[in-house]
Amino acid sequence: MNRAVAARSLVRCLIRNGGGNRHQILWYSSSSSLARPSVTELWRQSGASGGGVVQHWVRTMSSGAAGAAVKEKENGTVEKALQEAKEKKEKESGSQVEVSSYWGVTRPKITKEDGTEWPWNCFMPWETYRADLSIDLKKHHVPKTFADKVAYRTVKLLRIPTDIFFQRRYGCRAMMLETVAAVPGMVGGMLLHLRSLRKFEQSGGWIKALLEEAENERMHLMTMVELVKPKWYERLLVLAVQGVFFNAYFVLYLLSPKLAHRVVGYLEEEAIHSYTEYLKDIDSGAIENAPAPAIAIDYWRLPKDATLKDVITVIRADEAHHRDVNHFASDIHFQGKELKESPAPLGYH
Amino acid sequence: MNRAVAARSLVRCLIRNGGGNRHQILWYSSSSSLARPSVTELWRQSGASGGGVVQHWVRTMSSGAAGAAVKEKENGTVEKALQEAKEKKEKESGSQVEVSSYWGVTRPKITKEDGTEWPWNCFMPWETYRADLSIDLKKHHVPKTFADKVAYRTVKLLRIPTDIFFQRRYGCRAMMLETVAAVPGMVGGMLLHLRSLRKFEQSGGWIKALLEEAENERMHLMTMVELVKPKWYERLLVLAVQGVFFNAYFVLYLLSPKLAHRVVGYLEEEAIHSYTEYLKDIDSGAIENAPAPAIAIDYWRLPKDATLKDVITVIRADEAHHRDVNHFASDIHFQGKELKESPAPLGYH
Repeated sequence: MNRAVAARSLVRCLIRNGGGNRHQILWYSSSSSLARPSVTELWRQSGASGGGVVQHWVRTMSSGAAGAAVKEKENGTVEKALQEAKEKKEKESGSQVEVSSYWGVTRPKITKEDGTEWPWNCFMPWETYRADLSIDLKKHHVPKTFADKVAYRTVKLLRIPTDIFFQRRYGCRAMMLETVAAVPGMVGGMLLHLRSLRKFEQSGGWIKALLEEAENERMHLMTMVELVKPKWYERLLVLAVQGVFFNAYFVLYLLSPKLAHRVVGYLEEEAIHSYTEYLKDIDSGAIENAPAPAIAIDYWRLPKDATLKDVITVIRADEAHHRDVNHFASDIHFQGKELKESPAPLGYH
Repeated sequence: MNRAVAARSLVRCLIRNGGGNRHQILWYSSSSSLARPSVTELWRQSGASGGGVVQHWVRTMSSGAAGAAVKEKENGTVEKALQEAKEKKEKESGSQVEVSSYWGVTRPKITKEDGTEWPWNCFMPWETYRADLSIDLKKHHVPKTFADKVAYRTVKLLRIPTDIFFQRRYGCRAMMLETVAAVPGMVGGMLLHLRSLRKFEQSGGWIKALLEEAENERMHLMTMVELVKPKWYERLLVLAVQGVFFNAYFVLYLLSPKLAHRVVGYLEEEAIHSYTEYLKDIDSGAIENAPAPAIAIDYWRLPKDATLKDVITVIRADEAHHRDVNHFASDIHFQGKELKESPAPLGYH
């Protein structure tokens, strides 16, 4: 039977949730592009009683809120149910957005392994992972060429005002610098995408690898912002820095992707060092070892009693991987090749 | 046991390949960030004989080429084997890139369900899907507001020179216009990404939804370019159009994401119309119904004897879905909300 792989992934996810939760399958509006038969088949396979009772979930809020559930007969008044659900939710919260069922692109309800609703919109259960903590944190690219030395010294110079501004406020440092760290992957990915289009060339998977890095850094930010709230002048500083850094890196990547990747490799080495210092301060008690935020527990599959120390440890492992990917990308350019000539490292973060 | 989800997906993929191919598991270099124990466990589960014989695959070429396989003892001479493999491959082909094992980011070998090597770098087996051909192709957003009318008339105006240039050369039209179609999703995704960073806000999944759209359009291009090769003046035209359109859409999305999404929604409606005309010409025999390229067969999970007609049909279904997503995104803005307030449609293409 024809099934979208996305539906298959969803089906696998729901099946893994166990028998008791199979009734929590989303029923889509009739114009949904997600393969309906697979959901019906799963419904039948789950042995649910009755011929046509389905649950229609209306997800109307951003991450963290539960959707409204409306039980309706399969050939019945779905629109009425949507309206009732909307009114009920609007009473509960003022800022609702009515999901437009006309376009048929509502989000299916996803449940966690314990049966509770998946609260996040920006990542799905199958995108979570456990970081490899055995990664070598000490690797360093010894600057050899002139470009390497420019990259290395630039990064070391930029460290000076950063250290003066943040001192040992590592939480604030992480929160603000992740807004910078998430830019290079997106810029690089976009420029490779545009090149692939205008040259009619394959990408070797590097577009995805770099976009994956950008998204991973953004998830670091989403985690840190649960722990450290930015002050108004820090927000202004982030705006200014993004404006400068985005444009500077854009131009740098156009002129010399080799240098751009090398700079990012060295930036990641500095990030590893800073996170190591952060961990030392947590161990010494200078920084409180707070409970890990829920988003981190779900994203990195941490235990429920995970703490800030666990979160910083996995973030640091991610940065080590980004270091490897960017130094590798620069090495490819150093050999006079283009990235597409070497398959990209995918499936990591 | 700790396992990266990526490793789990890989493991699932390999297990589905059946017993005879389980020896085709990649063994990573020791600094790989992909969870090593899961590969060892799979090796033991597969009942492979011997205690420490593994296969080390070196992938050195872009899509379509096979990697070199080197059998080595687990505690043995992996570096020597890499060198031998490199020399062997270099004899076979001049333009090889030595995979840098130092950084430990080599790509695992993936096999298809029939045991042959997965030839593509830019998408993995778990990213393939079967398009939902029941999607309603006739949906149209009737222009209501001034912005809607601007969007609609702009698109209709742009159609005029396009029709004059391409006439009924639908293959060429598809090949060149996909270089344009893949831009909005990337620009929109990037701008939402930057906003999420500087505002410390969740994205609602829309960054991923738009990037997914861009990548899907790029896959349309990679497919069409197997069938229709661009001439030199068409390449120049694509360069010029990309330069203009990228910047214009970037500014438009900054000024009015509502208008930007509406424009894309209408562009997709026009694309559906063009692909319908393309199918008519294939049916009438005016355009040869060539065999489908391998990349299309793998990406859309088409049957091995699929033809151009099947490819255009699934591409058209994808465009219909993009139409829905973009009109929906514009509707959200029309309600005075931001995209992050409504969960993004993910898992489709």
